[in-house]
Amino acid sequence: MKRTTYAGLVDEQYLDQDIVLKGWVQKRRDLGGLIFIDLRDREGIVQLVFSEEYGKEALKTADELRNEYVIEVKGHVVNRAENEVNNNMRTGKIEVRVTEINLLNKAKNPPFYIQDNINVSDELRLKYRYLDLRRPEMQKSLRIRNRITQSVHSYFDSQGFLDIETPDLTKSTPEGARDYLVPSRVYPGHFYALPQSPQLFKQLLMGSGFDRYYQIARCFRDEDLRGDRQPEFTQIDMETSFLTAEEIQDLTEGLIAKVMKDTLDIDVKLPFQRMDWDESMARYGTDQPDVRFGMELKDLSSIMKNVDFKVFSSVVENGGQVKAIAVPGGAAKYSRKDIDGYTQYVERFGAKGLAWMKVTDEGFNGPIAKFFKDEAINKQILETTGAKIGDLILFAADNQRIVADTLGYLRVAIAKEQGMIDESQFAFLWIVNWPLFHYDVDLKRYVAAHHPFTMPNEEDVHYLDDGEDPHKAYAQSYDIILNGLELGGGSIRIHTRELQEKMLKALGFTKERAEAQFGFLLEALDMGFPPHGGLAIGLDRFARLLAHRENIRDVIAFPKNSKATEPMTKAPSTVSDKQLQELDLFVTKPDDGE
Amino acid sequence: MKRTTYAGLVDEQYLDQDIVLKGWVQKRRDLGGLIFIDLRDREGIVQLVFSEEYGKEALKTADELRNEYVIEVKGHVVNRAENEVNNNMRTGKIEVRVTEINLLNKAKNPPFYIQDNINVSDELRLKYRYLDLRRPEMQKSLRIRNRITQSVHSYFDSQGFLDIETPDLTKSTPEGARDYLVPSRVYPGHFYALPQSPQLFKQLLMGSGFDRYYQIARCFRDEDLRGDRQPEFTQIDMETSFLTAEEIQDLTEGLIAKVMKDTLDIDVKLPFQRMDWDESMARYGTDQPDVRFGMELKDLSSIMKNVDFKVFSSVVENGGQVKAIAVPGGAAKYSRKDIDGYTQYVERFGAKGLAWMKVTDEGFNGPIAKFFKDEAINKQILETTGAKIGDLILFAADNQRIVADTLGYLRVAIAKEQGMIDESQFAFLWIVNWPLFHYDVDLKRYVAAHHPFTMPNEEDVHYLDDGEDPHKAYAQSYDIILNGLELGGGSIRIHTRELQEKMLKALGFTKERAEAQFGFLLEALDMGFPPHGGLAIGLDRFARLLAHRENIRDVIAFPKNSKATEPMTKAPSTVSDKQLQELDLFVTKPDDGE
Repeated sequence: MKRTTYAGLVDEQYLDQDIVLKGWVQKRRDLGGLIFIDLRDREGIVQLVFSEEYGKEALKTADELRNEYVIEVKGHVVNRAENEVNNNMRTGKIEVRVTEINLLNKAKNPPFYIQDNINVSDELRLKYRYLDLRRPEMQKSLRIRNRITQSVHSYFDSQGFLDIETPDLTKSTPEGARDYLVPSRVYPGHFYALPQSPQLFKQLLMGSGFDRYYQIARCFRDEDLRGDRQPEFTQIDMETSFLTAEEIQDLTEGLIAKVMKDTLDIDVKLPFQRMDWDESMARYGTDQPDVRFGMELKDLSSIMKNVDFKVFSSVVENGGQVKAIAVPGGAAKYSRKDIDGYTQYVERFGAKGLAWMKVTDEGFNGPIAKFFKDEAINKQILETTGAKIGDLILFAADNQRIVADTLGYLRVAIAKEQGMIDESQFAFLWIVNWPLFHYDVDLKRYVAAHHPFTMPNEEDVHYLDDGEDPHKAYAQSYDIILNGLELGGGSIRIHTRELQEKMLKALGFTKERAEAQFGFLLEALDMGFPPHGGLAIGLDRFARLLAHRENIRDVIAFPKNSKATEPMTKAPSTVSDKQLQELDLFVTKPDDGE
Repeated sequence: MKRTTYAGLVDEQYLDQDIVLKGWVQKRRDLGGLIFIDLRDREGIVQLVFSEEYGKEALKTADELRNEYVIEVKGHVVNRAENEVNNNMRTGKIEVRVTEINLLNKAKNPPFYIQDNINVSDELRLKYRYLDLRRPEMQKSLRIRNRITQSVHSYFDSQGFLDIETPDLTKSTPEGARDYLVPSRVYPGHFYALPQSPQLFKQLLMGSGFDRYYQIARCFRDEDLRGDRQPEFTQIDMETSFLTAEEIQDLTEGLIAKVMKDTLDIDVKLPFQRMDWDESMARYGTDQPDVRFGMELKDLSSIMKNVDFKVFSSVVENGGQVKAIAVPGGAAKYSRKDIDGYTQYVERFGAKGLAWMKVTDEGFNGPIAKFFKDEAINKQILETTGAKIGDLILFAADNQRIVADTLGYLRVAIAKEQGMIDESQFAFLWIVNWPLFHYDVDLKRYVAAHHPFTMPNEEDVHYLDDGEDPHKAYAQSYDIILNGLELGGGSIRIHTRELQEKMLKALGFTKERAEAQFGFLLEALDMGFPPHGGLAIGLDRFARLLAHRENIRDVIAFPKNSKATEPMTKAPSTVSDKQLQELDLFVTKPDDGE
């Protein structure tokens, strides 16, 4: 039997026709002599009817069917009885009277229902991933991801970009995240590394004159997993020659507009807002601002410089900041206990406390209100924060970083709690002009804010010269933000050996280490390298946001769990002694039976 | 300056216009006061002219330019003098009078010329791969590859296939080729394996009801490299549910027709020829027949059974074969010494010798001619082989495999030597109905001819039952051949646990090993698995053939050399002790300084 169409697509256009369908038994209802089967395939569900009148043998077979059996049926499409019409389904007006059926495969009872919103553990879902993926919401998520990649290929092709593959077995570069290593069998003690990104290869492709490159590239990072991270992830990766940062942003906007249209039929407004990194930090306390709501950070430092409240005034005197957000209607909504909870939370950012005042029709209220008796100052506070009667003002007073982290976090947490965010909205914006370097609190040293190949702003190049402070330099880099999350980022790259060497030096590389690690790039930059720049977008996160899912696992067919294992195939696994011998490797820690 | 168009695209439509171009200096000719520069970019070359009249400063800069310098120019497009017109180039009728120029980057003298057909070692080309890739033939090769992948995405999308990514960090399955391993940091002594193909995952996606899957998938095999092999390679991978082998072949033909049209503007004739594996082996001595020429193998066994020449008759008596090919005009072209060379060569197939006769107008000629005096037999030999006066007949007498290997090899080698192959032709065909198993001479046991998940022909399923000989079974498998090379292959897969278990048993798996290795698949087959099948095409080889290149390295941007190393980045490399400690690994063989 040759399938006529998908079950989920059978509608009135097939009325009075004989059709063939193939799929899974979603549900069986036996009404005695009359059996109804919901037949499911990737497009949806259609109602089959079996009776002696329509097909005697078929009715017999239908009697044996159980959930998830695989069948093929031939039948006649008729209108449903009027009281059974379901206008919410494409197939809701018709049913199929089955004349023939073949049972193609049986099924054991599945460990969970094949339907949306099931309440089972992630581990069970991953172990039976092939069943989990049968659920409509998972089918939809992966189809959205497919729609994105189709859109990406079609867009880049239309713009003259070439899809070029870069290697997965490449060289370990300890700068950055931890590499996944792959032992070489030919050279004992030598290892390939799986790429953290195709960064250097795509730059070299610009050196090769391809002018416009893109790739949907698999990347790998052996880091501890949390939230939106997987050991392997996928990047929409592009690089161009001879373009400015703005031109690359324009190209990217065209891509995103097409993806949004193709995927969700949404027309996004171009161009996206472009905001300087400094401004974003000042207004939102983060470089990934969610601009779907207000409640911006307001700087009260100049006001607080002279207040009686030492906690504030001394911070400002010592070069720190006092900033605040005004929570609309927060006076009634937040108890002292609620705020204590927040105070505890923001300790992780280094905040020593969280000051607050409620705005009442009798003035400020709260533990520090007693320090604020000066009408003129209070008026300035209200004007600057925009707080009105009934609002709660939350203050942070500390150095710039701690204030930003604290209020940046609170702004988003409170907005989510208070339902201030329109979740149907997609708010894109560019954060541009990043600092070239970023102080890493854990490593206690400056690292590249993006990566060591980022071009400084033209007027800042001199900061990399001897005797100047490189950390003052800003960069020709740009991140694209969607709904308060980094969707991707890029930059103009360094295209001369001289500047690249200075950059590596500023990052603490000796000449020898620079040569050992990036010698091939430095040499290439001497061979007629064009100005170039590009961008990478995280496909997994993009798909997750467009599919409105909470976890990127839901837009990856076979993801790893939080321990980086795959419960279905049980990877990683032990391997044979022969395999280890061939690689001249010895495991120093015995298998713990895990 | 914003680029107007690519250098290689400037033609008469730009006449009298001011344009901006960016690219590389291919060549400089100084005629004293007049400088000609060939400017190169990815689309080709255009002639720039500098003179004091057109731009005084520009002329000065032009004087400093050397090969591979990167420049941007503004200029005016004019007709060339009539005696300088080059009609073979798109830009051959015009030149650009340069008014402004900016030097964007200098270049050292490259280690080889940036032009086609250079005579330098592969190692040097790989070390300076970014320069090698600037050469027009390499640009063209990678653009053909890009055109193929664009065509693949567009075709599969139009046919309702979903692009779904499968994991690269997966489980080691020692059946088949050697895996590349990736040590786990979380579980000491545990390893991921890089996939040899997405085979099991794509089958599971059919179990998930996606119905039509495709992916351009990276695959990995840690085998010794020769010819067309690379440690990592790329597969056009697809899988469908509910379709027959013929329907999958039809879909594939649609894909190939589109690729050929989009890539080389060639209309291929559909459907492709479908030939049984047995027939291919009989007529061509191989399951990858090159059908662009004749010279087929002819079976003379029944004739030779009764001849006086014991070498032939005894082979036939003992169940072997005598087969021959007739080389047109070979009598004059091949000396005894030439044939001795072949004889020596075919020893590697196990052939004990190579018998031959030349057909002259006085009958057979050659060392064994004396055994052939019977006119009737000689007439049969001539009729069966189709040999004519002036031809050379080459005989092989041995078991079926040795005869096939010997004459299959000679047929192709001689055709190449004699220029019998129309190299501009693309001859596709299907080899269908493969044996399910294949005797591996090295392993001295039967292995799966394709893989252990291949569905036997319906009428042969019983051969897998206890007490029967499974090696008699033929399979629902099919390879697609292009010009005598396997382009891809596929099959209908087993979709029930019962049959899959029998298949694994026939391959020598114990129940325990089957469970340990493929338990998740066996369990999945019990959960409502649809009938399914698919195919994979080797993208690298496909691109190589369409680009008319001799080596797949020429259609891979950054390939490995024959030692699986990458001379530019020097991967694989040693790693730090810290990296090894984190993985609980110890290298048992010290670094030999390689």
